[in-house]
Amino acid sequence: VDSSPQVLIDGRPGQVVHWNDRGLQYGDGLFETVAVRCGQPLLWAAHLARLWQGCSRFGIPAPDAQLLADEARTISAEVRRGVLKLLLTRGSGGRGYRPPEDAHPTRILSIHSFPTYSDDFRKTGVSLYPCRTRLGLNPSLAGLKHLNRLEQVLGRREWNDPRIPEGLMRDIDGRVVEGTMTNLFIVRDGCLNTPDLSRCGVLGVMRGEVLRLARSAGVGATVTDLMPADLATADEVFVCNSLIGVWPVRKIGRHTYAPGLITNRLQSLVAGATVYGVT
Amino acid sequence: VDSSPQVLIDGRPGQVVHWNDRGLQYGDGLFETVAVRCGQPLLWAAHLARLWQGCSRFGIPAPDAQLLADEARTISAEVRRGVLKLLLTRGSGGRGYRPPEDAHPTRILSIHSFPTYSDDFRKTGVSLYPCRTRLGLNPSLAGLKHLNRLEQVLGRREWNDPRIPEGLMRDIDGRVVEGTMTNLFIVRDGCLNTPDLSRCGVLGVMRGEVLRLARSAGVGATVTDLMPADLATADEVFVCNSLIGVWPVRKIGRHTYAPGLITNRLQSLVAGATVYGVT
Repeated sequence: VDSSPQVLIDGRPGQVVHWNDRGLQYGDGLFETVAVRCGQPLLWAAHLARLWQGCSRFGIPAPDAQLLADEARTISAEVRRGVLKLLLTRGSGGRGYRPPEDAHPTRILSIHSFPTYSDDFRKTGVSLYPCRTRLGLNPSLAGLKHLNRLEQVLGRREWNDPRIPEGLMRDIDGRVVEGTMTNLFIVRDGCLNTPDLSRCGVLGVMRGEVLRLARSAGVGATVTDLMPADLATADEVFVCNSLIGVWPVRKIGRHTYAPGLITNRLQSLVAGATVYGVT
Repeated sequence: VDSSPQVLIDGRPGQVVHWNDRGLQYGDGLFETVAVRCGQPLLWAAHLARLWQGCSRFGIPAPDAQLLADEARTISAEVRRGVLKLLLTRGSGGRGYRPPEDAHPTRILSIHSFPTYSDDFRKTGVSLYPCRTRLGLNPSLAGLKHLNRLEQVLGRREWNDPRIPEGLMRDIDGRVVEGTMTNLFIVRDGCLNTPDLSRCGVLGVMRGEVLRLARSAGVGATVTDLMPADLATADEVFVCNSLIGVWPVRKIGRHTYAPGLITNRLQSLVAGATVYGVT
């Protein structure tokens, strides 16, 4: 991957968007962060499905699937290992919250270097920073990967220790929800539990993949509310996203976790299904 | 005002921002909507104070006050009656939520035509559309005029009747909070009540002005939680913002309100203090 990202804006190489794009004015849009391996965007269908769902909820005209796939393949063609970010806004639209009736969405595809995480994160696990910033409760936005991401920005700026790659976020009622950029799972009595994300949080593509792989491997998996006490008494904890696959969690604040069999198994299943973690 | 808005980006005439500006990527920024009258941005100090507060809460370096005032005056100089929108982002900053340590904020000042509202809205009042979209509870963002405005976009796209200029938004617990672009006051027993905005909502500059003017005129004013029942039993209701000043509310859903003396008085006080409503 070249150090300068390659960018396609509405299908053409470009660097700029109009100042009155509603993505900038209101965060009126959605995005996807897609792992690229040997020229292939991974889990593309799942990313597209979530983007489509967002378009439907927000009333943003969905771009043509074939066009988007073609652009994604074009921009990813020379990428051995990298990140494709796909950002879709409602396009330009004057002053005022009301969307234009004939919205012309802006789509931005950009290629980025793969983040340089220590191999230890994947092998021996990560420490999670306990964020003080709480996630608000916004059922009308929950689940989607939209462009209103100030809570994640505020959470992520709470610490600056490169040995700690992720922070744990709770909601304003105290529930444990997710990382700033990952979803969270705990293992208890051999079964997976992951937070219900109907009030806040992002329904991660890798979260869906982990749930699918666990169930087809006969590992029970439940979506439910989790409180800090559930985390404290968990046998194993892990986080996941489309770029990292699965990272075991070995520490949250002062609480430590031993390496876990179920986490390892899920890590292998994910790696086998999507070549995550194969370096 | 020219029909094409004039724009200053980082002090220079321009039309575009870099695609990786964090304002676009994450809604990582703030804005102000300022009325301009005879070349003067109105209530400038109050707008600046709110912007400063946002910069402080988000850790965005605040632009130089003198520079911003100079740019605002420059762009407003020829404007008899218009709108100055001031947008400040954290600037460009790579992929990932963590803000760069040496952020270089982007500032966009743009001039817009004054909205063409019917005089009746100010004189005989408006009807409010009861939005189904609920405001989430986000104490870490509440009060600020930040760029995460999807809830307002979703609320505003629920209706499309030009006779209805504003919608009423409740929070997920049912409290009445604000309009999509205005703050709300009710009058009961000769006193003002306006919603507490510590969990969600925008602390409008005109809301602050109304509270200040009411108190100095000897009208009691309380900031408190309001439920739909409080609205149903109110003697008067009005909405306000920096562009419209005060609009009496005559109808919400099926409930109607008679014209009110306190609302008229506040409307006059606001007009006298800031030349709002003088046409």
